[in-house]
Amino acid sequence: MRFGDVCVVAPDSPQSGMGHAVTINDTLRVADMSSQKGFPMFSCSGTPVDCVKLAMNKLLPGRPDLILSGINHGSNSSINVIYSGTMSAAIEGAILGITSIGFSLCDYSYEADFRPCLPWVDKLIALALYETPFKGYCLNVNFPKGEVKGYRYVRQARGYWAEEMDERLDPRGGKYYWLTGTFEVLDNEETTDEYALRNGFASVVPVTFDLTDYQILEKLNKLKSIRAENVKT
Amino acid sequence: MRFGDVCVVAPDSPQSGMGHAVTINDTLRVADMSSQKGFPMFSCSGTPVDCVKLAMNKLLPGRPDLILSGINHGSNSSINVIYSGTMSAAIEGAILGITSIGFSLCDYSYEADFRPCLPWVDKLIALALYETPFKGYCLNVNFPKGEVKGYRYVRQARGYWAEEMDERLDPRGGKYYWLTGTFEVLDNEETTDEYALRNGFASVVPVTFDLTDYQILEKLNKLKSIRAENVKT
Repeated sequence: MRFGDVCVVAPDSPQSGMGHAVTINDTLRVADMSSQKGFPMFSCSGTPVDCVKLAMNKLLPGRPDLILSGINHGSNSSINVIYSGTMSAAIEGAILGITSIGFSLCDYSYEADFRPCLPWVDKLIALALYETPFKGYCLNVNFPKGEVKGYRYVRQARGYWAEEMDERLDPRGGKYYWLTGTFEVLDNEETTDEYALRNGFASVVPVTFDLTDYQILEKLNKLKSIRAENVKT
Repeated sequence: MRFGDVCVVAPDSPQSGMGHAVTINDTLRVADMSSQKGFPMFSCSGTPVDCVKLAMNKLLPGRPDLILSGINHGSNSSINVIYSGTMSAAIEGAILGITSIGFSLCDYSYEADFRPCLPWVDKLIALALYETPFKGYCLNVNFPKGEVKGYRYVRQARGYWAEEMDERLDPRGGKYYWLTGTFEVLDNEETTDEYALRNGFASVVPVTFDLTDYQILEKLNKLKSIRAENVKT
């Protein structure tokens, strides 16, 4: 391989919307598929995050230089990062101290063409391995559909899923639901992933696993000390 | 109820380690259990996040003032926030613009005593509803085992799970694994949730769903512009 030795560990079934789920109440199975490809390759019964934990603890001979996840079939920009199994695998890598990149292509169609992404995947791997003087971070990389003009370091755009529950009746008259809906983007500043993607650039968002909201933390502590002062006087 | 009308939507099975998973490839079922308690109460076949989505879209008559999740049986401090179904339900509430609180008790035993938490649950609900002049945030509240001396607004301590995969053989000689391990805390500053909990205080961490790492983002953009300058000259 161009950049080094590769080991693949992948879930054995679709994992859409799996988020940062781990398998605690069930067992995990691993199948060695290495003979099919000529490099170490394992199929795992668990979630994307389970795959990273298994790789790090059982399947790899040592700590890897880089963990890659994807290319996911469909966008993981904006708030989608939080529902994404692809991105959660990359985030798990960073939690364990390994530089990690999750890749996604903003095209859900079965005939999605992943080829325009590949030179940029190479470029970003090279940057992460050789050109960035800091390690252990996690990148969320999304590619626009079609031509890729370049890449932009940007922030996660504010957005949410305006859900509709598709209500149906089973053959016995029982109600059931399918989760569906439309994605609503709440800001369109030049500094966001959504803006970069809409303008033909790959979006590269560095992602943290420290979920502390430091702005709210400061506000809450300020309020608390004002209240304490009022009680004293 | 003391603070207002209550509606309960809960998963119909254990959801440990479910993270921010949503049910995309399967249907959701809801059972109305209201008659058992005298207030609206629903059981849902999905994940904790599915419960919030179903509540907001199908089960509640309008937008709620507050979304509460828990009290979880076991700690969701430090990095555990990211694996937690309890906290992901609260985070989903905040994504949808509703002030949300996830509660957890740092005691995994079957006989865990939740009573010392209750006055503090009341206090924090009152704060969120009546005393905080900003809305739509999410709090991760953990209670120490036993007496609760008070609460502290703190940040998420750095930590990770040092996993071991418990490897076993099934009766047919096939290998399988159980996820297990020990939780490693990497900092013990006074400003962390772990410090508060170890000293007998409830930890209250405001949680964000903007996963952008702004420090790394700044570094990456600086590097990129330095490189661009070098190319020009």
